[in-house]
Amino acid sequence: MFDQQLAKRAAENLKHLREKKPLIHNITNYVVMNYTANALLACGASPVMAHALEEVEEMVSFASALVLNIGTLTPYWINSMLKAGKRANELNVPIILDPVGSGATKLRTESAKRLMNELTINVVRGNASEVLSLAREGPRTKGVDAMHSVDEAADAATVLARELSTTLAITGPMDLITDGERTCRVSNGHKLMGYVTGTGCTATVIIGAFLAMDNDAVQATTTALAYYGLAGEKAATRAQTPGNFQIALLDALFTIDEKQVKQGARINIISPKGRTL
Amino acid sequence: MFDQQLAKRAAENLKHLREKKPLIHNITNYVVMNYTANALLACGASPVMAHALEEVEEMVSFASALVLNIGTLTPYWINSMLKAGKRANELNVPIILDPVGSGATKLRTESAKRLMNELTINVVRGNASEVLSLAREGPRTKGVDAMHSVDEAADAATVLARELSTTLAITGPMDLITDGERTCRVSNGHKLMGYVTGTGCTATVIIGAFLAMDNDAVQATTTALAYYGLAGEKAATRAQTPGNFQIALLDALFTIDEKQVKQGARINIISPKGRTL
Amino acid sequence: MFDQQLAKRAAENLKHLREKKPLIHNITNYVVMNYTANALLACGASPVMAHALEEVEEMVSFASALVLNIGTLTPYWINSMLKAGKRANELNVPIILDPVGSGATKLRTESAKRLMNELTINVVRGNASEVLSLAREGPRTKGVDAMHSVDEAADAATVLARELSTTLAITGPMDLITDGERTCRVSNGHKLMGYVTGTGCTATVIIGAFLAMDNDAVQATTTALAYYGLAGEKAATRAQTPGNFQIALLDALFTIDEKQVKQGARINIISPKGRTL
Repeated sequence: MFDQQLAKRAAENLKHLREKKPLIHNITNYVVMNYTANALLACGASPVMAHALEEVEEMVSFASALVLNIGTLTPYWINSMLKAGKRANELNVPIILDPVGSGATKLRTESAKRLMNELTINVVRGNASEVLSLAREGPRTKGVDAMHSVDEAADAATVLARELSTTLAITGPMDLITDGERTCRVSNGHKLMGYVTGTGCTATVIIGAFLAMDNDAVQATTTALAYYGLAGEKAATRAQTPGNFQIALLDALFTIDEKQVKQGARINIISPKGRTL
Repeated sequence: MFDQQLAKRAAENLKHLREKKPLIHNITNYVVMNYTANALLACGASPVMAHALEEVEEMVSFASALVLNIGTLTPYWINSMLKAGKRANELNVPIILDPVGSGATKLRTESAKRLMNELTINVVRGNASEVLSLAREGPRTKGVDAMHSVDEAADAATVLARELSTTLAITGPMDLITDGERTCRVSNGHKLMGYVTGTGCTATVIIGAFLAMDNDAVQATTTALAYYGLAGEKAATRAQTPGNFQIALLDALFTIDEKQVKQGARINIISPKGRTL
Repeated sequence: MFDQQLAKRAAENLKHLREKKPLIHNITNYVVMNYTANALLACGASPVMAHALEEVEEMVSFASALVLNIGTLTPYWINSMLKAGKRANELNVPIILDPVGSGATKLRTESAKRLMNELTINVVRGNASEVLSLAREGPRTKGVDAMHSVDEAADAATVLARELSTTLAITGPMDLITDGERTCRVSNGHKLMGYVTGTGCTATVIIGAFLAMDNDAVQATTTALAYYGLAGEKAATRAQTPGNFQIALLDALFTIDEKQVKQGARINIISPKGRTL
């Protein structure tokens, strides 16, 4: 029922991640810095947070992936992201963008679009309204909440991925990953993730860590989201309330073994195999 | 012994909050951003943190309440607060101010007073020395610690609330809420709250969420503090140490039901019913 | 086997800390602000985070120790650290520096060296590569990770402590503390501390709190690290995964009593007693 090759790949990516402990450079928002750093450590990566214009080019040169996240942004931070991102592009360090709140305010939408225009971004992860706001005629969103379901967004995302020449990941009850040609869905995850701040941003950094291990952006993103969603499921078997759940989620990222990932990953290839969305 | 009408109101406000999930816009300090965002999610609200001058007016226009908190302030952040606050006033979005450390340094005291002068602030929540520092002849405080007990501060607060035309909430072992005419006390809470950073700031955001549901500032503040204090009591039945307590407090905000709030709220109306402070 | 006098001193310092609740002023990085504030509260101190140029001199005048941490630094923050530090030096408020990532980027290395040059710093705590990067011919480090073991670093540290006229603490599986004349090692601690972000920064703030109680920098640092490492050991008896461990570590800082510290501190005086490194 679920794709076995990608499930196996998820386990392999996790194994390599834990062996290589790649440095992930984050230019991200204040709210989630601590939690995403802990999530990266728990999954086996080595996080660094650095945003000063004077050092981002140097820092990204040591990194295996660059995470850009526009929550709590100001123009200074966007300039840092552009500077780090240009150097990352020169060095072929993969970049993942989390367009937090894009579509909600002009600053966020324009900043996200500027990053897309001036940089080669390998993956964009957001909720449906954030991701779709990157289109020329992006819809307005209510704050950072999703106004579009993943289902509604699937066709639009396929078109948009082609237009932007990137891989888009729309996360929600069921995740959608597409580069415009290949489309996958991941059905791992748990609803308690919606009651902890930064669980979307954490999905983004986990994808960043997998991108450091896997050059194929669709594959890296899909396998990362299966692993992360599975960690959410495992956490929910231990904790049914948001406080305990946020801790259990870090623990699950750390304790899940490769066998569990291989068995538990619920990934479907929608296309090119056959479109069933 | 305790006021039954306000206890019932506390339960109703919580019910409405969980149904409506209002967006609460926070311009707050770096230390507590993550924890207060999680507290807002746990109680049923939808938090957003945004401080860029370019977007605060737009962001606050989507919000049902605005939280201003001057911990880790710089002049840039005060300008953001003023800009967001003026727009909030135009749109009748209620504002709550947390004057963290006011009285301790000139920057904090002057910034808090400037916010009070230039904006219509619906509620101010702080410890006794922070709140009383807003008076023209405010006393100096030692850092962010309270130098005045709630008891000492009660009379001064009543006078000050009239002078400032706002509702003041002085929190401590027993909370005092007054708009200069009506005065209430809330005796819910637990001493372990003093061992977790940001529990005062969290009281502020919970009041912000209740203000989004209840136009009567004294009533919104009183009922919010009863609910929040009750969550602290419930958390203390599960955790006797600060690490576990901070997690249990988030869980209690999430799990307390309306019946428990109605039964557990310990609110006294001191005035106009009869002054017994 | 272990030094009994320093173990007794560790217990006494902790006792005094809990009695006096000194205010510790932190100018630190965004990632760890919340966690280190909670750690300071848990051990009995009173934390304040403040970095505005307009208030740091005033704030530090209330403090019993100043913590400077260059993670997530920008030039503005370095200027704040210099301003606060100069005032601290005038007032004989002890300063501890955490040179996060020094050696990794030019900005960090130069900023750390500038702080060392322009201020009298009582203690520097970092991993081996961060601390050794403060030498005129500092080695480059990979991000914020340690490239030198504590063993390799011991001789270099002794020379460097003399050169810099300060106390250096290199933390790792076994901690090294030296002022160039006296050298101690602390073997408390647990490897799970490496899976929680900010546990190094937390070591730094705990030393800051002990410095507020003990004028002898080597003694304050050594006893603080024994207490902190012991808390890590105790936490590991309750939690074997990073999420639960980070919470258990705060709890252990709070619950460990003076008797346990006296019995559990594993401090060796290497010099002047006899060099056994």
